[in-house]
Amino acid sequence: MKNIVLLGAGRSSSVLLDYLKEHADEMQWKISVADVSLNHAKEIVKEHRSFSFHDLSKDVSLKEKLIAESDIVISMLPANCHFEIARFCITHKKHLVTASYVSKEMKEMEEEVKKHQLIFMNECGLDPGIDHLSAMQIIDELHAVSYTHLRAHETGRKNIHGFESFCGGLVAPSCDDNPWRYKFTWNPRNVVIAGQGGAAKFLQEGTYKYIPYHKLFRRTEVIDIEGYGKFEGYANRDSLSYIDIYGLQGIKTMFRGTLRRLGFCRAWDLFVQLGMTDDSYTIPDSDKMTHRQFINLFLAYNRHDSVELKLKHYLKLEQDDVDIWEKLEYTGIFSSEKIGLKNATPAQILQHILEKKWKLKEHDKDMIVMFHKFHYVDTQNKMNELHSYLVVEGSEQHRTAMAKTVGLPIGIVTKMILEGAIQQRGVLVPVHQEVYLPLLNELKNYGINFTEKKII
Amino acid sequence: MKNIVLLGAGRSSSVLLDYLKEHADEMQWKISVADVSLNHAKEIVKEHRSFSFHDLSKDVSLKEKLIAESDIVISMLPANCHFEIARFCITHKKHLVTASYVSKEMKEMEEEVKKHQLIFMNECGLDPGIDHLSAMQIIDELHAVSYTHLRAHETGRKNIHGFESFCGGLVAPSCDDNPWRYKFTWNPRNVVIAGQGGAAKFLQEGTYKYIPYHKLFRRTEVIDIEGYGKFEGYANRDSLSYIDIYGLQGIKTMFRGTLRRLGFCRAWDLFVQLGMTDDSYTIPDSDKMTHRQFINLFLAYNRHDSVELKLKHYLKLEQDDVDIWEKLEYTGIFSSEKIGLKNATPAQILQHILEKKWKLKEHDKDMIVMFHKFHYVDTQNKMNELHSYLVVEGSEQHRTAMAKTVGLPIGIVTKMILEGAIQQRGVLVPVHQEVYLPLLNELKNYGINFTEKKII
Repeated sequence: MKNIVLLGAGRSSSVLLDYLKEHADEMQWKISVADVSLNHAKEIVKEHRSFSFHDLSKDVSLKEKLIAESDIVISMLPANCHFEIARFCITHKKHLVTASYVSKEMKEMEEEVKKHQLIFMNECGLDPGIDHLSAMQIIDELHAVSYTHLRAHETGRKNIHGFESFCGGLVAPSCDDNPWRYKFTWNPRNVVIAGQGGAAKFLQEGTYKYIPYHKLFRRTEVIDIEGYGKFEGYANRDSLSYIDIYGLQGIKTMFRGTLRRLGFCRAWDLFVQLGMTDDSYTIPDSDKMTHRQFINLFLAYNRHDSVELKLKHYLKLEQDDVDIWEKLEYTGIFSSEKIGLKNATPAQILQHILEKKWKLKEHDKDMIVMFHKFHYVDTQNKMNELHSYLVVEGSEQHRTAMAKTVGLPIGIVTKMILEGAIQQRGVLVPVHQEVYLPLLNELKNYGINFTEKKII
Repeated sequence: MKNIVLLGAGRSSSVLLDYLKEHADEMQWKISVADVSLNHAKEIVKEHRSFSFHDLSKDVSLKEKLIAESDIVISMLPANCHFEIARFCITHKKHLVTASYVSKEMKEMEEEVKKHQLIFMNECGLDPGIDHLSAMQIIDELHAVSYTHLRAHETGRKNIHGFESFCGGLVAPSCDDNPWRYKFTWNPRNVVIAGQGGAAKFLQEGTYKYIPYHKLFRRTEVIDIEGYGKFEGYANRDSLSYIDIYGLQGIKTMFRGTLRRLGFCRAWDLFVQLGMTDDSYTIPDSDKMTHRQFINLFLAYNRHDSVELKLKHYLKLEQDDVDIWEKLEYTGIFSSEKIGLKNATPAQILQHILEKKWKLKEHDKDMIVMFHKFHYVDTQNKMNELHSYLVVEGSEQHRTAMAKTVGLPIGIVTKMILEGAIQQRGVLVPVHQEVYLPLLNELKNYGINFTEKKII
C-alpha cells in the first residue's frame, strides 16, 4: 500500500481526484484528501474505500501528521503555502509534487532534498507544466539532429533560432457567445491586472525588447489554429528566464505570451489607456457611484459632451469603429447601474463590472490553447518553421479544461514517482526526458495531445 | 547676539547666504555654516566676521553640538535628514526652518514642539513655499469678501469655485536656445521620472479626475503669461491634499501642475510611450550600447525599417510632424554614440543622454514661473476669474532664480522668528496671515513680486 496525501482539493482538483480514484485499486493507493472545505472533493469522489477526507480547519497539526504518514505529498494549495509543506516533507523524508513555480526558498532546499534522495517535482500543471513537456520534447529532438550534423567544435546547440510559446484559458467555441469572445475561466483578478508590475522583456532576432504596460495590448502577435481560427498573443513579463530553463543559450528569439481571441486586446487596451486597471489607489465613495460615473473619472472634463463622446475623442476612436464599440457597450460600462463596492480600486471596480458579463454560465465549457512556434536550421542549413499546439475543451462544469490540464500531469507524475520511474533527485521541473516522455504519452491517453505541423 | 546654524550649504543656498550676510551686522547674528563640503559657501560669503564654517564630514557629533549652541536652526539638507535634526531641536529647545514638506514623523512631534513653545516652520522655499504665501493671501481676501456678503448661516466659505496652481523651473528667455525650450535647472533625475508612482488625482467641476502616467503628458493646460508667452502645465500627482491645507473644503476644481514651454509635453510623451523613462529594471550591457540601439529596444521588430521609420509607425507620428522630429533629433537619441553607463535603467540612460544637451551653459540663466488661477463668485453672484503670477530670472551662475526663490523666504522667515514676529507655535507651514503678509512684503524688496490680473 502507498499513501498519497493531497493538500488542497478546490475546484481545479476534480480531474486529479478522478485520476487518483481510477488508479487507486490497481496501484493499491490510500489517498488522504485534506482541505479547509471538503464538499467539492467528496462530491467528485463519491464513495470510495481508498479515500479518506481530513478537515484542515479543525486541527493545525493535521497537515504535518498526514505528511508524516504518507509516501508522497501533492500540494494544490496556493504557492505561498509550499515552503511550510516542503519543510515538513524534508523532516519526514517524503516526495512532493506541485503545480507552482520553483520559489527561491524551494530552490535553496536543493541540497537537503538530494541528500535524502527525494523528489520535489514542481511546475507540473498546465503553464507551468505541459508547456515544459511539449517544448522540451521538440527542443531535445532538434538538438539531437544538430549533434549528428554539426562538427565536434560546433556543438553549441545553435540550430534553434527562435522559440515562441503562447498559452491561454478561454471559452469553448460552443459557448463563445459574447463580443469579447472571453469569459472568466480562472482567477478574474489576475486577468484584470495582467501585465502590471514592470515591462515585458523578451528577445527578438538577437535584440532585447521591452514593452511597457501601456503598450502591451497593442503589440500582439496573431496565431491561427486549424479548426479553431485566429487568436492573438500579448507578451508575458518574463520570457528571458526560459532561455536557461530550456538550455537555449544563444537563441535569437525567445518570446512567451498569453492568448486571447482576435480583437480582445485592442478593446482591453482602452481600459488600460484610461487607467481603469490601476490597483494602487482606492476611489472615495465608489459604492455610490454608477458605472457611467466610474468611467467618467478617467475622461478629460468637458461641459457639453457625453461620456461616450469624450471617450471617443480622448482615445481617438473612429465614429464607425463598430467592433470596439460593441465590446465596450456589452460590458455595461456606460450604464447607470450602481457599483455597490466600497472603497475599491479601479481594478476591483472594473473586475466587479466585468464579472456580471463574463461569468461562466452553468453549462458553459472552458478551453485551453497552447501554441509553440520554433524556427530552426536543418541539416541542409535551411531555416524551418515548426508549430506544435494543443487545444483542450472542458467536458462539463467540474471537468474543465483547466482542471484536466492541471490535474492530469500532477496525477501522472505522482504515479511515476511512486512506481520508481524517475531517477533524478532534487528540486525538479519536468524538463528531462525520463519525465516528459512518459508523461506526454500518458496524457495522450486522456486526450491531451499536441499536433505538430511543419510550415513549408 | 543670536546664533543661526545653517545645515546644508550647497548650490541652492547662495542667495540665503547673501541674505544672512546682508543682515548679520545690523541684527547681531552669528552664523555657523555646516556641510560636508564648504567650498561653495565660502566662495559666496567670502570673508565675514559673523560667519564660521564647520565640516560635517569630520565629526559625527558636530551637528548636535552646533544645534545646542544655536538660537535657530535652518536645514537645507535633504528631507530625509530632517527627522534627526528635528529631534535635536526638541532636545535643545531650538526653532527650526526648512523648505521641505511636513513629513508624518515631523507632524507627530507637534505636541512636543508646542509644549516647548517652539516654531518648526516647514515648506518655506518655492514649491512648497512661495506657492502657499501667494495662494493664501488671495484665498483669505476672497473669503473675507464672502463673509461680509453672506448671511450668517452661509459662512461656508463657498465663494471660491476653483483654484489651479502651476509652477515650473525653466530656462530664462535670453538662454532659451534649444527646440525643447528646456534645460535641467534642477535635479535631472526628478525631471526624467516626474509623474511616476501612481495616477495624478485632482478635482474638476465637482468630479474627481484620475490621469494614469502614460496619459499625463497629453492632458496639459495652456497658460499665457504677458511678456513671457505660452506655457503648458501637466498635473501633479496630488492636488487633493491642498483642499485641507488651504481651507478650501467644498471647492469644485482643485488642480496643481508643473509648467513647461508649449510643445515640451507632447514630445516628452514619446519617451513615456516607448517606456524609456522606466526606472524599475536595468538593461544588460547598457554601457556598450549606442543611443540608437537603446531606443531600438523599445520598438517593435521589423527587419527592413530604420529605427526612425519604426518609431514613426509605432507612435503614429505624421511624416511632416516637424516640431516633434526636430526635438527628437536634437537629443541625439538616434546617434551611434556609445552610452557608456553600466547596468543602467532606461530612465538613467535617458537622463544621461539628455544631460549632454540640456545642461546649463556657464552663463545660462534659469527662470521660475508660478501661476495661480482662481474662479470665484463675487458679491453680485457673478463668476470671476483672477490670475496671479510670478516670474523670476536668475541673475548669474550662482544667484539662480531657484536659489533666490528657495533662499529668500527661508532667510526672511528666520529673521521674523528671531525678531519674535511670529506668535503661533508648533509644526507650521506658512499659510497664516501673520507669516505670509510680512514675508510677501519683504520678498517684494528683492524683486519677487506677484502680478494680479482680473480677467474680464
